[in-house]
Amino acid sequence: MNKVEIRDRFFSRYKELIRTEMIPYQWKVLNDEINITIERERNDDSIPNEKSHVIENFRIAAGRKKGHHYGWVFQDSDLYKWLEAVAYTLREQMDEELKSLADHVVDLISEAQEDDGYLNTYFTIEEPDEKYNRLWQSHELYCAGHFFEAAAAYYEATGNQKVLDTACKLADHIDFVFGQEEGKNRGYDGHEEVEIGLMRLYRLTQNDRYLNLARYFLLIRGTDQAVMGSKHLPLTYYQAHLPVLLQENAEGHAVRLVYLCTAMADAAAETGDEKLLDACRRLWKSIVNRRMYITGGIGSTVSGEAFTLDYDLPNDTMYCETCASVGLVFFAYRMLLSEENGEYGDVMERALYNTVLGGVALDGKHFFYVNPLEVVPGKSRKDPGKSHVKCVRPQWLGCACCPPNLARLVASVEQYVFVQKKNRLLVNLFVECKGSFEIEDGILDIELKTGYPWTGSLEIKVNYSGTACVCLGIRVPSWSDTTGLEINGKSTDSDAEHGFVYINQVFKEDTIRLELDMEPKRWYANPLVENDLGKFAVSRGPLVYCAEEVDNGKNLHLMSVEKQEPLEYEFKEALLGGVGVLTASGWKTEADREDLRLYRQGNAAEKKVRTKIRWIPYYSWANRGENEMRVWIREENQR
Amino acid sequence: MNKVEIRDRFFSRYKELIRTEMIPYQWKVLNDEINITIERERNDDSIPNEKSHVIENFRIAAGRKKGHHYGWVFQDSDLYKWLEAVAYTLREQMDEELKSLADHVVDLISEAQEDDGYLNTYFTIEEPDEKYNRLWQSHELYCAGHFFEAAAAYYEATGNQKVLDTACKLADHIDFVFGQEEGKNRGYDGHEEVEIGLMRLYRLTQNDRYLNLARYFLLIRGTDQAVMGSKHLPLTYYQAHLPVLLQENAEGHAVRLVYLCTAMADAAAETGDEKLLDACRRLWKSIVNRRMYITGGIGSTVSGEAFTLDYDLPNDTMYCETCASVGLVFFAYRMLLSEENGEYGDVMERALYNTVLGGVALDGKHFFYVNPLEVVPGKSRKDPGKSHVKCVRPQWLGCACCPPNLARLVASVEQYVFVQKKNRLLVNLFVECKGSFEIEDGILDIELKTGYPWTGSLEIKVNYSGTACVCLGIRVPSWSDTTGLEINGKSTDSDAEHGFVYINQVFKEDTIRLELDMEPKRWYANPLVENDLGKFAVSRGPLVYCAEEVDNGKNLHLMSVEKQEPLEYEFKEALLGGVGVLTASGWKTEADREDLRLYRQGNAAEKKVRTKIRWIPYYSWANRGENEMRVWIREENQR
Repeated sequence: MNKVEIRDRFFSRYKELIRTEMIPYQWKVLNDEINITIERERNDDSIPNEKSHVIENFRIAAGRKKGHHYGWVFQDSDLYKWLEAVAYTLREQMDEELKSLADHVVDLISEAQEDDGYLNTYFTIEEPDEKYNRLWQSHELYCAGHFFEAAAAYYEATGNQKVLDTACKLADHIDFVFGQEEGKNRGYDGHEEVEIGLMRLYRLTQNDRYLNLARYFLLIRGTDQAVMGSKHLPLTYYQAHLPVLLQENAEGHAVRLVYLCTAMADAAAETGDEKLLDACRRLWKSIVNRRMYITGGIGSTVSGEAFTLDYDLPNDTMYCETCASVGLVFFAYRMLLSEENGEYGDVMERALYNTVLGGVALDGKHFFYVNPLEVVPGKSRKDPGKSHVKCVRPQWLGCACCPPNLARLVASVEQYVFVQKKNRLLVNLFVECKGSFEIEDGILDIELKTGYPWTGSLEIKVNYSGTACVCLGIRVPSWSDTTGLEINGKSTDSDAEHGFVYINQVFKEDTIRLELDMEPKRWYANPLVENDLGKFAVSRGPLVYCAEEVDNGKNLHLMSVEKQEPLEYEFKEALLGGVGVLTASGWKTEADREDLRLYRQGNAAEKKVRTKIRWIPYYSWANRGENEMRVWIREENQR
Repeated sequence: MNKVEIRDRFFSRYKELIRTEMIPYQWKVLNDEINITIERERNDDSIPNEKSHVIENFRIAAGRKKGHHYGWVFQDSDLYKWLEAVAYTLREQMDEELKSLADHVVDLISEAQEDDGYLNTYFTIEEPDEKYNRLWQSHELYCAGHFFEAAAAYYEATGNQKVLDTACKLADHIDFVFGQEEGKNRGYDGHEEVEIGLMRLYRLTQNDRYLNLARYFLLIRGTDQAVMGSKHLPLTYYQAHLPVLLQENAEGHAVRLVYLCTAMADAAAETGDEKLLDACRRLWKSIVNRRMYITGGIGSTVSGEAFTLDYDLPNDTMYCETCASVGLVFFAYRMLLSEENGEYGDVMERALYNTVLGGVALDGKHFFYVNPLEVVPGKSRKDPGKSHVKCVRPQWLGCACCPPNLARLVASVEQYVFVQKKNRLLVNLFVECKGSFEIEDGILDIELKTGYPWTGSLEIKVNYSGTACVCLGIRVPSWSDTTGLEINGKSTDSDAEHGFVYINQVFKEDTIRLELDMEPKRWYANPLVENDLGKFAVSRGPLVYCAEEVDNGKNLHLMSVEKQEPLEYEFKEALLGGVGVLTASGWKTEADREDLRLYRQGNAAEKKVRTKIRWIPYYSWANRGENEMRVWIREENQR
C-alpha cells in the first residue's frame, strides 16, 4: 500500500501539538472534564455553549445514561472529527492508550446507533418522530458524513472492523431511506458533507451504492424534484437555488459551498463525469478569481457566514472561517485528481499555510473561527459590525467545528503531498517526507528534503524497483518567478507546463534538485477589489505576511511604503517558534493630535516620518497578546 | 413679537413641498388612506409596519371606536410631529382648511387624554396597568415631549387654547408622578425628548415647574438615585452609563444623544448653569471633532443606530439617520444661545444643507432614514452588512420618525436664521428673509437678500426705530477663507471673532454687504479616520458634494484626481431642480477584466485613463434612479 511519512520541521511541530495538546485537550472538552471559558462567537443568547456534552449525548442515546441532549444539533460531528484526527495520529505513530480510548468511542457510537442503522444522538434522544423531517437544519446527514470520514480513516489506521460496520450500516440505512424512487425521501441535507463521507466510504469499500447515493444527493440539490420542508434562510445559503450543474457563482454559506464542491469534484474524479467537472471548474473560478482573500480565506460576511458578490472582499468585517479554508483545501485536492493544474496546489497552499494554520495558536490550544485580514481591538470591542472579529484566539468555541476540523486536516497533511495517477506521481506540497508508491510493475520510493516554507531548496531522491518509465511532476508555484532544476547534478530545462515541471524516466537512485524563487513579493489585488486599492500585500514563498502593532506601533493604517523599497528577509529563531520576518523602510503618517478638527483643507496625511516596517507570517499573528494587525499596506506613489 | 418671514428661493421650494406634498401625504398615511408600499428599514419580522394606524389609535383611546392599538409604542409621536409641521406652515401662511383639520386633531388628542392628564394611546388602550413601568422602552415621556413641542408651536401659530391646556395638563400630570421626592417615580425615559418639550413649554408659559421637571429628568439620568426597570440594551445606548454631567463622549443611539444634548443646552441657556454647559461643550466636541461625518451625519453603526468610537467613520455601513442630523441642528442652535461661537452655526449648516435635506427626495414624497456617504447597489442587495443602506429613497418607512421630523425642521427654518440676545442680533443662516425684532427701545427691521447657497453675496438692510446702539453679528463660515465686508458702500475690516463679524452702531437704513468665499474646496479628514485616508471630499459654500454613477459611470472607487487639479463650478438650471455642479479632470483606473487573477505582482491600478469627474450636491443624490454614489474620492499623488 502507498504510504507517506512526514519528518518535516514545520509540520511535525503542528502534528506533535495535535498529538500532545489538541487531541487530549479536545477529549477533555468532549467529556466536559475541564472547566473552560467557552467564548461566544456571536452575541446570540440562543446559542447553547456552556459545555460540550458530546460524549454524554452518546451515552444517553446508547441507553447507558438517562438525560437530555445538550448542545447543537450537529454536536455529534465534534466527536467524529476528533476520531478522524486520532486515526491519522495513530496511523503515523501507534499509541495503544489512545487507540484503546478511541476503540471505546467506537463502541459507544455503535451502541448509540439504532437497530435500523439510524445514528444521531439529538433525534434519538429528543425527537425520534422527527427524523429526516427537518433536513434544512437538522444536520443528520451532515453528521453521518463526518462519521463516514472518521470511520474510513480509523479503519484504515487500525483495522477496527466495528467502526466500518457501523458506518456501512448507517450508509445502508440512508440509502434505504433516500432516493428518487417512489416512496423514498426525496430530500437532501441543508449542510453538505454526507456526500464527501459517502465518496470516502465508496473508495474504501468499492460499494457502488455509496457512489450512487452521493451522486443522488449532489444532483437532486436545488432541483424541483427534491421535497424539502420549510426553511428560514434564502436558498442560496444552502446552495439550493439552482441544480448544482447550473450554478455559476460561489453563493451562500462558505463552508457548505466548498464541502459541496469537494464532493462534486470527488464524484467527477471517480466517474469522469465531465458535466460535474465543468460545474466544479466554474465554481472554482468563481472562488479563486473573484471571491477569495489573499490568505485563502473565503466568506466575505458574518451574516450567514457567506459569500457576497464578486470582488467584495472587506478586510475587517469578513468571516473567513477556518473551516471554510479547510474545505477549500479538500476541494483543491479533489480537483487535482481530475486535472493536472498547478493552480489547485497553489490555492491549497495558500489556504493551508495561511488561514488554516492561522486558525490555531502556537500553543495548539487556542483557535480562531474568524480570520481577519485587519483588526483594531477597539473596533472589535465598540463596533457591533466587528464584534465577531476576535483579536486573540479564544480557548474553545461554542460552536466547536473549527478546532477539530483543522486538527484532522493537519494530522493528515501527508495525504496532500503527492497525487498519484497510474504511472504518474505529482509532488504537490513541499513537506519533508518519505513516500512509497506502487506504480506499474514496481515500487517508487521518494524522499523529499527541504527547509520549506523558509527555504525554497528541494532535494528529491527517487528510486524505482520496476522497469517502467514513470512521470514525476513537481509543482512550481505561480509565485516562483524562476526555478533551477537539476537532475543528478545536471541543470535541466525547467519550463513548467500548467504549473508542473515533469521528469519522465525510469528512475534509479536519481537526485533531483529544484530551487524555488524565495524572493519576497508584493501583491496587488484586482482594482475591482475596492478595499485593497492603493495597497499591497507581502508574501515570501507560500506565506502571506502581515504587520502587527507589537512590531509597528498603533494605527497601522497610517503606514505606507514606497513602490521601489526592497523587502529584507531574516529568519528569527527565537521569534514565534522560529519565523522569517520581512522589513522595509516606510513611512508613518503622524496621528495629528494637535489639530483637533476632523476636516481640514490641508492634507495632514502628508506629514509623515520615516519608519521601519516589519511583517511576520500571517499564520503566526495574535500570539503576542491583543493588538492591531493588517495584511494590506498602503503604497506610496512618490519616489 | 419677533417675526421672520422667508422668501428664499432655495428653502421656499422645500417649504412649498412641505405644504403641498408632505403634510397632505403624511396626513393620508396617518389615516391609512393611501395604499403605499411601506419599506422595511430592517429585515426584522418583529417590526409592525403594514399601516400607520396613528389616527385610529387616537380614536380608540378617545373611546370613539373599539379596537386595538397598532404600530410602534411611539406611534403617537408621528401625529405630534405632523401637527408641529402644520403649525409652522400655518404661521407662515394661514390655510383655514388645514387649520380646521388640525383643530380637529387637537380635539381628538384632548379626548384621548385621561382624566388625570395621562396621554399615550398604547398604554391607554392595551396596558393601562403598566403606565410608566417600562420606561427604558415605553417612549411614554418621549411622546409627551413631542406633544409639548407641537402644542407650543400650534398655540403660537393659531392661538388654539385647547392644545396648550391639554399639554399643560399632561405636563402637570408628569410633574405629579415623577421626581426625587419620597413616593414619586424616580425614573426617566429611555429615549430623551420630554426634556426638550418641557423646556419649550417653560419658555412659553414661564412656569418654573416645567423647567425644574426638565432639569430633574436630565440630572437623574445615569445616576444611582434613579429607579428603572430591566433593560435589553447596554446603558450607553440610553446615555445612562454615567450622570450626564460626567459624560465625556457621545455614546449610544445617536438621535437620543443629540436630543439629550439639546435639552441640556436649552436648560443651560435658560439657567446659566455652567456645569451643564460644560458637559454640553464636552459632548459637542466629542461629536464634531471625532464622531461626525463631513455631511453632518452621525451614528457610525446600524447596530443600535449608534456612535462607535473616535474616528470610526465608515462611509458605507454607517447609520447617519436623518433624525440624528435634525437633532444636531437643534443642539447647535441651543449652544448658540449660550455661546457666540460660529462653529455651532457651521455645524448646523453642515447638517441642515447636507444630511437633513438629503433625507428627502426632490419630489418631497420619498425619504431616507440612512444617509450613506458611499453606496454600490449590488452591495446593498448582496452584502447583509449593507442591507440597511438604501440606494433610493423609499416612499414611507415602517418606523416613520424621519419624514415628519425633517418636515418640522425645514418648515421652521426661519427660527434658526437669527439669534437674539438682549441688544445683540446674530445672523446665523443665510436665507432670504425679512425679520423684525424688539431690541431695547425699538424695533429692528432686517432684510436679507442672497442667492445662497449658490452665491456667497449677502445684502443685509437694517433699520432701527430706537436709539440704542445694537450689535449685529454676522456669521462667517469657517470654510470662507476671505470675506469682503461693506457698510453703506464702504469697505470695512472684516476680521471675524469666534466666527462672527460684528457691527456695533445705531442702525438707520443701513446696507451691509458681505461676500463669502464660494471657491470650491477640497477637504481632508484627520488621518485617524482610516476610511478617508488618501481621499478628499469637495464642497462649495455649505454644500458637500458627491459623485454619482449616472454622471461618472460604474466603479466610482476607481476614480482619482490629482492634487493640483482645479475644480470648475457651473450652475445647471435644468438639473435636479437647479444645482451647481463641480467638475475636475481626473483619472479612472481601468476595471481590468482581461487579467482574471485576483492577485498579481503587477499593479493594475496603474493603468488608468483620463476622465472628467462630475460632482453634484450631496442633498440632491439618488434622484435619478438607483446608482452608485460616493463622497470621498481618491487623491492621486503624482503631478
